[in-house]
Amino acid sequence: MSENFSYSTEEIAALWRVMRERRDVRHFVPGALPEGLLHRMIEAAHLGPSVGFMQPWRFLHIQDQRLRQSIYDMVEQERQVTADALDQRRDEFMRLKVEGVRECREILVVALRDGREADVLGRRTMPEMDLASTACAIQNMWLAARAEGVGLGWVSFFNPEELSRLLQIPSGARPIAILCIGRVNSFYPKPMLEIEGWNQRVPLENVLTVDRWQ
Amino acid sequence: MSENFSYSTEEIAALWRVMRERRDVRHFVPGALPEGLLHRMIEAAHLGPSVGFMQPWRFLHIQDQRLRQSIYDMVEQERQVTADALDQRRDEFMRLKVEGVRECREILVVALRDGREADVLGRRTMPEMDLASTACAIQNMWLAARAEGVGLGWVSFFNPEELSRLLQIPSGARPIAILCIGRVNSFYPKPMLEIEGWNQRVPLENVLTVDRWQ
Repeated sequence: MSENFSYSTEEIAALWRVMRERRDVRHFVPGALPEGLLHRMIEAAHLGPSVGFMQPWRFLHIQDQRLRQSIYDMVEQERQVTADALDQRRDEFMRLKVEGVRECREILVVALRDGREADVLGRRTMPEMDLASTACAIQNMWLAARAEGVGLGWVSFFNPEELSRLLQIPSGARPIAILCIGRVNSFYPKPMLEIEGWNQRVPLENVLTVDRWQ
Repeated sequence: MSENFSYSTEEIAALWRVMRERRDVRHFVPGALPEGLLHRMIEAAHLGPSVGFMQPWRFLHIQDQRLRQSIYDMVEQERQVTADALDQRRDEFMRLKVEGVRECREILVVALRDGREADVLGRRTMPEMDLASTACAIQNMWLAARAEGVGLGWVSFFNPEELSRLLQIPSGARPIAILCIGRVNSFYPKPMLEIEGWNQRVPLENVLTVDRWQ
């Protein structure tokens, strides 16, 4: 018989609270982050799982305001191109706020490092597991930020090659996220895109089947 | 000035405990999961973030023991091919335990659903954000399982096309994980691949730079 490794009811409830209240944030207000939080968020990410323990993640803390402006221009350009690609939902899309690059307090660009082709364990048929690992790491950061009352938004409106050129990211590496981090006036009670009616919540029973696809 | 949305010290500590103690588990012992945990894990996943709120994840709960055996055979075959691909580290790799498909209590296969090409928001230049979203969802499950004292291992030793055929997953969808879930005798004090010396922990300062790649 195995030991009981379960946490206390209060600890389990705390985890559920943060999973439920975490949001993809686009609306920021001025104000410094809690002391040391950015560093703790990197620590949280670094506790994430990684295929073959390869730890493929790298974080670029954007402090140069000209770089921030260039990132904003890049994101805004991609937003316009996306609007065109969305065709019939163009106007609806243009009313959404999809990024908070200028208003957020801190920006982290997350990239997959170069030299990943040497890491074969668990990736021979599934090379994209490096991205999966890094996404898990970002989810840790997201939860850590929320628990300290800070919003985080993952922006993917960019061309990775263009962002690489801007930040001198080598060709074997790949940026996967622009993370906007900062204070908020409120956390959305539900995902913002659900509130805005962009997409509906899929019923839980629709995501689970037994044995075979249905 | 924004409100203080920070959780209590105890709640923050609970989150950090589970982030620190979560492990990619390969060693399982018999025993049922806590009542309802599997369902709660799907719920936790479904609270994950998703690009464009597309909720691309689908879960297949493998109950048919013949399917489980076929999955095991598939994983074992890929383990052998990986060993050959690893060349100089072949023997070292073969001593590692990389899956717990036969011993774990429950198996969930996680897949990206079909029809994802219709979801363009945040994916025009970054189509792989569907995988990133699903990985974030799995990280939620991982933390939820750990908090209830249960191990989870993400196995990626498989050919996705072959697994799709076995589980009748349509061509537009894609399996990304075989999750092994079950009771354990202990949680590894550090990542198993770190304990086994497969890879070392990268120092935290090596994953963070300012502004540009270094």
